[in-house]
Amino acid sequence: MNNIHEKYMYEAIKEGEKALIMNEVPIGAVIVKDGIIIAKGHNTREIQESVIGHAEINAIQEACRKLGTWRLTECDMYVTIEPCPMCAGAIFQSRLRAVYFGSNDEKAGLLGSKFNLFSIEGLNHYVQVYSGILDDQCKSLMTSFFKKKRNK
Amino acid sequence: MNNIHEKYMYEAIKEGEKALIMNEVPIGAVIVKDGIIIAKGHNTREIQESVIGHAEINAIQEACRKLGTWRLTECDMYVTIEPCPMCAGAIFQSRLRAVYFGSNDEKAGLLGSKFNLFSIEGLNHYVQVYSGILDDQCKSLMTSFFKKKRNK
Repeated sequence: MNNIHEKYMYEAIKEGEKALIMNEVPIGAVIVKDGIIIAKGHNTREIQESVIGHAEINAIQEACRKLGTWRLTECDMYVTIEPCPMCAGAIFQSRLRAVYFGSNDEKAGLLGSKFNLFSIEGLNHYVQVYSGILDDQCKSLMTSFFKKKRNK
Repeated sequence: MNNIHEKYMYEAIKEGEKALIMNEVPIGAVIVKDGIIIAKGHNTREIQESVIGHAEINAIQEACRKLGTWRLTECDMYVTIEPCPMCAGAIFQSRLRAVYFGSNDEKAGLLGSKFNLFSIEGLNHYVQVYSGILDDQCKSLMTSFFKKKRNK
């Protein structure tokens, strides 16, 4: 994998680590435009009691505020875990150019594991999807969370 | 169709009419718990420049705030148009009990038209889906929007 993708994924992992400290499922995301990280997000569902408080949606909302538009064309997302149905849908709606994710989510991933949203024909937008970037590091972040939870 | 469902759908249509006045795609939603409407939402995407400003997500966020939890179990949603991938995913994530929608969205509906999210096996939650409630009224709200837009 190209180093530039790993560089951005490391930033997404750092976001995931913030969630871990807050006892949230440790998922992190960043959004990149023209080589610059314009938005970051981590999972805040429990602390905010908000369904939509996933890393991807937090990052998308920040990017929309920064750019002053809901259209995130020419933007790419890096996220540690494969997006769920809601986040895959938000990625579709925000017109992102590409998504790079770390580890697959066999339980709810909608960009290939459970189903691939972009396998549906006739949508008005398609996002390029790449997986496996720093897979081991993204996975071990999740493992450490669930180990910590079990030990409690 | 049972009158009680039409009663709630009329409230969702009223929400959609608010969006129409604001020149937003006129979609409205309400969330009902124990026979009481606890949250309402309409499309605010353009005015807020927010990808997530769909009627369903606005209603879900209000319901989470009201109930102080992200888990909307025992809650039902009424929405004028079939949810898109993002909103179908948010409905899945929020653990809603049932969704009643008015008209199908042949272009992006993910509860049966383009694809049925809940046809995926092995998800950790399933939502009951009912369609066609006040179908004509929901559809004509959309038609009047696109007619108005074309005439401009």
